[in-house]
Amino acid sequence: MPNTAIGGAGLRGQSAGTTSLCTVGQTGTGLTYRGYDITDLANYAEFEEVAHLLLVGHLPTQQELDQYKTKLVSLRGLPKALKAALELIPADAHPMDVMRTGCSVLGNLEQEEDFSQQQQATERMLALFPAIICYWYRFSHDGIRIDTEDQSESCIGGYFLKMLTDKAPNELHKKVMHCSLILYAEHEFNASTFAARVCASTLSDLHSAITAAIGTLRGPLHGGANEAAMAMIENWATPDEAESHILSMLANKEKIMGFGHAVYRESDPRNALIKRWSKELAADVGDTQLYAVSERVESVMKREKGLFCNADFFHASAYHFMDIPTKLFTPIFVMSRLTGWAAHVFEQRANNRIIRPSADYDGPEAQQWLPIEQRG
Amino acid sequence: MPNTAIGGAGLRGQSAGTTSLCTVGQTGTGLTYRGYDITDLANYAEFEEVAHLLLVGHLPTQQELDQYKTKLVSLRGLPKALKAALELIPADAHPMDVMRTGCSVLGNLEQEEDFSQQQQATERMLALFPAIICYWYRFSHDGIRIDTEDQSESCIGGYFLKMLTDKAPNELHKKVMHCSLILYAEHEFNASTFAARVCASTLSDLHSAITAAIGTLRGPLHGGANEAAMAMIENWATPDEAESHILSMLANKEKIMGFGHAVYRESDPRNALIKRWSKELAADVGDTQLYAVSERVESVMKREKGLFCNADFFHASAYHFMDIPTKLFTPIFVMSRLTGWAAHVFEQRANNRIIRPSADYDGPEAQQWLPIEQRG
Repeated sequence: MPNTAIGGAGLRGQSAGTTSLCTVGQTGTGLTYRGYDITDLANYAEFEEVAHLLLVGHLPTQQELDQYKTKLVSLRGLPKALKAALELIPADAHPMDVMRTGCSVLGNLEQEEDFSQQQQATERMLALFPAIICYWYRFSHDGIRIDTEDQSESCIGGYFLKMLTDKAPNELHKKVMHCSLILYAEHEFNASTFAARVCASTLSDLHSAITAAIGTLRGPLHGGANEAAMAMIENWATPDEAESHILSMLANKEKIMGFGHAVYRESDPRNALIKRWSKELAADVGDTQLYAVSERVESVMKREKGLFCNADFFHASAYHFMDIPTKLFTPIFVMSRLTGWAAHVFEQRANNRIIRPSADYDGPEAQQWLPIEQRG
Repeated sequence: MPNTAIGGAGLRGQSAGTTSLCTVGQTGTGLTYRGYDITDLANYAEFEEVAHLLLVGHLPTQQELDQYKTKLVSLRGLPKALKAALELIPADAHPMDVMRTGCSVLGNLEQEEDFSQQQQATERMLALFPAIICYWYRFSHDGIRIDTEDQSESCIGGYFLKMLTDKAPNELHKKVMHCSLILYAEHEFNASTFAARVCASTLSDLHSAITAAIGTLRGPLHGGANEAAMAMIENWATPDEAESHILSMLANKEKIMGFGHAVYRESDPRNALIKRWSKELAADVGDTQLYAVSERVESVMKREKGLFCNADFFHASAYHFMDIPTKLFTPIFVMSRLTGWAAHVFEQRANNRIIRPSADYDGPEAQQWLPIEQRG
């Protein structure tokens, strides 16, 4: 007989395995990657350093980092069949469906035949994910076939902005992208990572695991929160207007996206880090509205419900200030979390047992078979 | 602090939720779908009756079944962009990558925008999955663009055989396909179904959940077992040769695919049901080798290791006798298990909490940040 879930629904509070990648809500400011505090990583590192930390196992030396970035830059060419597949997807498709499909198609064209190829397959996805979403977006929306082999930007965040806009991104934007990609890189057994591990536990290939994770992140309860926050805050012209709407939403028991967390209880350590950049971007673009609205929403939610902003809330305004279309917010999450997903797949493979829980049955008792002519 | 997994690795024996769809190893011959014993279903039902039972909630009347089948037949037309995408996938791709990609592309073209569309989206996939795999297979292997809107076969199993071979399948083959699709339709919280539920728990769309499940079923520890069994038994010309090889494989501690099970302890109730058809097919094609080899392997495994055949082992010879290429065995599993996956997604949605377990941390203690020039 199965043990009834002791941590409550959704396996909350129940250990489903072991990891050496991450702690959430345990030490330091509350989030560590391989023992390093998220605040240090977000303040001082490039995203590629953190990718190296998660995937290779240690922070790189300057020489290792240079080699890693050079390698990733060399892998930006989209296979011809993948470009053709992206061109078949209409402009009104969901961008996360495009990411999921791009990853899945890649798995057909460049199959991971052996787990010894896992590092290489991950590097290829790190290089191609910004290319996949921008190639589809620019083709379907602007009718332009971009050259994804562009080498003018050596980092993934800057490369994404360049592919999206055709313009060289400024230093501020590149710094914000490093911070953002670092904050979203890894978060223990969140739903998308857990889906990747369940998939990997059957000894399936890396593309299947990452495809599963993308589809899982797509859900509004997971990766969609920063888009939902943006859709909300852009409606309000002033902090006072925001406050009165929030109060009536709370009175109607509507869910306010970007607040609270399944694991954190006091605060989300990622919030202060992205909030600082949102403020700096607001000053840079001369915003007098969106940042002020966001701050007011934060204080009203704290005052009224005791709820704190999670990583998603100030991401909305930060991305918006960089002219990133709202519907591409979650695909950026994919470019980043890919590092955590793949690192968890490596870990699952290194000490695997198929993830196959039991269930409590609450269906009908034994039923007597009735021939079809006797049913009614 | 998370509770350390009480059921052992892989959540074995640990309840991860509730279901009314299925019991495994509890009552009757050991497997029930909504209370009906698998033996009754496999002996007396058509696959479409079982699909209706799982997805709609009850065994259909004759009129309901006729309407259901008519509806499914009407949905066989592949969208033009999906055909074009399938034509881009090379002949040496993994057929499960093709299935995963076909499902993902479909999600771009016919998005499930609202959960009220879930039944309809599932019916479309039930109709299209045989079309997807056969369209790709025939185009990439034979250079032929098949007409998937063919209505000459009213059931999914017969339709698959017709699309694959261009010939009307005989009555025996159609009966075997019904039995096979029924046996594979549903199996509680197996890994692929659990992946679908994890995905659905973020309130993602149906295509994401099914895509995740396909990628999970792809693994050799899950859906790949009947293909692996085939690859093994086809090497042996006689039962004696099979026995001597099995004995040396066991001596070398090699894994023999198609035996034992994560949940069943005594026997797999699906084995006797498919074995009977394998025997009848062997007689029909005049086989004097493969069935006899399979029976010997079964008895040697029982004698030497006390292990029983699971659902996969006699599926290998049965499919082979119907001239189905080995690499299409797991895609048939997809056509069938789609019913269970979707029914579980419906169930998850009806009483949802995001599936987000915890993990035990075994990584490094708090690490001091070192600027890159000080690393070495």
